[in-house]
Amino acid sequence: MQTKLPKVGTTIFTTMSQMANQYQAINLSQGFPNFPIDPLIEDLLAKNSKENVHQYAPMAGLPVLLEGIAQMVHRVYQRDINPSTEILVTSGATQGIFATLQALVHRGDEVVILDPAYDCYSPAVHLAGGKPVHIPMREDFTIDWRELRQTVNQKTRVLIINNPHNPSGKMMDKEDFDALVQVMIDHPNLILCSDEVYEFITFEKKHFSAHNHEILRNRSVIVSSFGKTFHITGWKVGYLIAPEYILKEIKKVHQYLVFSVNSVAQKTLADYISGTDVTTLGKFYQDKRDRFKELMAKSKFEFLPSEGTYFQTVRYNTISNLPDVAFCEWMVKEMGVAAIPLSVFYEERNDYHTIRFCFAKTDETLIQAAERLCKI
Amino acid sequence: MQTKLPKVGTTIFTTMSQMANQYQAINLSQGFPNFPIDPLIEDLLAKNSKENVHQYAPMAGLPVLLEGIAQMVHRVYQRDINPSTEILVTSGATQGIFATLQALVHRGDEVVILDPAYDCYSPAVHLAGGKPVHIPMREDFTIDWRELRQTVNQKTRVLIINNPHNPSGKMMDKEDFDALVQVMIDHPNLILCSDEVYEFITFEKKHFSAHNHEILRNRSVIVSSFGKTFHITGWKVGYLIAPEYILKEIKKVHQYLVFSVNSVAQKTLADYISGTDVTTLGKFYQDKRDRFKELMAKSKFEFLPSEGTYFQTVRYNTISNLPDVAFCEWMVKEMGVAAIPLSVFYEERNDYHTIRFCFAKTDETLIQAAERLCKI
Ligand SMILES: CSCCC(=O)C(=O)O
Ligand SMILES: CSCCC(=O)C(=O)O
Repeated sequence: MQTKLPKVGTTIFTTMSQMANQYQAINLSQGFPNFPIDPLIEDLLAKNSKENVHQYAPMAGLPVLLEGIAQMVHRVYQRDINPSTEILVTSGATQGIFATLQALVHRGDEVVILDPAYDCYSPAVHLAGGKPVHIPMREDFTIDWRELRQTVNQKTRVLIINNPHNPSGKMMDKEDFDALVQVMIDHPNLILCSDEVYEFITFEKKHFSAHNHEILRNRSVIVSSFGKTFHITGWKVGYLIAPEYILKEIKKVHQYLVFSVNSVAQKTLADYISGTDVTTLGKFYQDKRDRFKELMAKSKFEFLPSEGTYFQTVRYNTISNLPDVAFCEWMVKEMGVAAIPLSVFYEERNDYHTIRFCFAKTDETLIQAAERLCKI
Repeated sequence: MQTKLPKVGTTIFTTMSQMANQYQAINLSQGFPNFPIDPLIEDLLAKNSKENVHQYAPMAGLPVLLEGIAQMVHRVYQRDINPSTEILVTSGATQGIFATLQALVHRGDEVVILDPAYDCYSPAVHLAGGKPVHIPMREDFTIDWRELRQTVNQKTRVLIINNPHNPSGKMMDKEDFDALVQVMIDHPNLILCSDEVYEFITFEKKHFSAHNHEILRNRSVIVSSFGKTFHITGWKVGYLIAPEYILKEIKKVHQYLVFSVNSVAQKTLADYISGTDVTTLGKFYQDKRDRFKELMAKSKFEFLPSEGTYFQTVRYNTISNLPDVAFCEWMVKEMGVAAIPLSVFYEERNDYHTIRFCFAKTDETLIQAAERLCKI
């Protein structure tokens, strides 16, 4: 059978989580929390189970949730958005990104992607008929703006920026942000896909969001995820924020791609969102990050800066010469801890002997994992 | 902004449901039940809200749900399928169809669609880079197999058949089924997308399913929908059944399109499905169909056969000369009942003065609607 995605196998997240199960390893690979969620959100879901909200939500989202999102954006970013024209609720951020690229990328258009990159971008560009153009970040995961400026051209339709950055945990600085704005000014037809799903999981640094700059917000699709913000990755509810002239094209695709998103989940999120302070999330995960680092103090892994997200990248140069994929396979089988090798996020499979741990885990899990990892 | 879908506006379902709200009309347009769902499924959802199933389900679906689907298929069709390789849980049938077409249709491939056709097929083919080739059904909504045979050619990649058929409510006869099998035999590279989302909503006639013929099931993607079967259109959970060599290509797309489907909903459906007899659904809706027809006995609408689905098509030739879209607009504004004009489901906008009512409604709603419609 001829394939539409010749380069693609099974995503690394499925592969590693399956191996973790198979070898009964501690799963620090696929990014998801393993601790209980807020009982309030469980209670609201239980309540809404009996509230007769079981039929199609409107295509763009439940109005009361759209309103709640607009208010949250206002509280956090002091930005006013129109809930009925500038927000689209999606079946997770992934589906939002897919719809965005299907709607905006025409055949032959280029889409610039910074590697290491979340693995759904490139296949989504391919399927939209576009050409992904990959630029590697520097080894410290900063963006090489000179190279980016040389790469963006007339054919570049979309630039995808992920900030805070998965898998590296890096965040953009003020200088990056200014450079980004300048690129957008220099290329008036370019649209920014600003993947900010970890927007609230930030530590010492200020988060520079596309919400906070007029030039960006007028030409951006900003991608967010309730899965990350409320520890409910399984619910598959995310949302896009974009100016109407862009979002209306994305809605045209969305309505035939999935039509609408789980109505009970939407109602529950609407009930939950208004009373919830998302700005405490950074501190919550910062503590986990610090705890994990502390527990790993005696390990031979070299910790790289984790500035945001719930990921910690580490180098294992002093431990092994294995390529990172082989190293992760060895680790899951022999040491009982699953991680994600970074090379899979590079078009050119660049291997800097770097792997990613997810620290969105209970203290108990982190303690057990660190115990095993310190033996390596 | 240059559009990817030049012919597309807002789907008729959104448009008509919005008008129904605006004019406070009885909404018999968009297809969804307005009666309470089974309290058992609500209870199970409430229970599962607190069962810590809030993180990513596996990409292809929760194993316990896949197992439940396989068992249901066995009970109903006496067909054995492999739950781990031949089923994919999707975010509604729509997303399943979109992923199917993205995975199977290569640039320039043709996809044959029988008009009137559910409105997501054609845009999904376009976005996959394919060419939708529309064949109108006969005026009585039977399939013109001669024309179909003349249309299918070397370039035809997929044939989409929707049976029971939305919007007409027609079902394939034995002769249709045999003709379909012959087409598949004559074109060994053709794949069938068998949209059977109303498989359990069937009345006097036997349902000829792709499950029931070896040649078909080995070359079909069969599309199903829990939304239709369990009255939960808002949950957005459907599934595809296909042989592994086809499904593995669809999974490649699915994993980057949406990754996985709401985990709490999947767990709840797994709990619910095993104890539920889906074969009573036909009788339930047959009663509604008969009740609606009875209530409309004095109306001037001409009822066409409704053999399956929860839709009733009617002709209004003796009532008005308005085109069907204008007639529906008039009806929702002036008579307070929303319906769907059939011409929107035809590439050529064929207007046979036919509109569609959804009878998945409480008796009270049907009585009120009929009262208004009998005044026309
Ligand atoms: C969709 S599974 C991947 C989860 C995730 O965001 C990650 O691990 O990077
Ligand atoms: C996705 S809204 C349309 C519902 C439906 O299946 C119909 O009305 O035909």
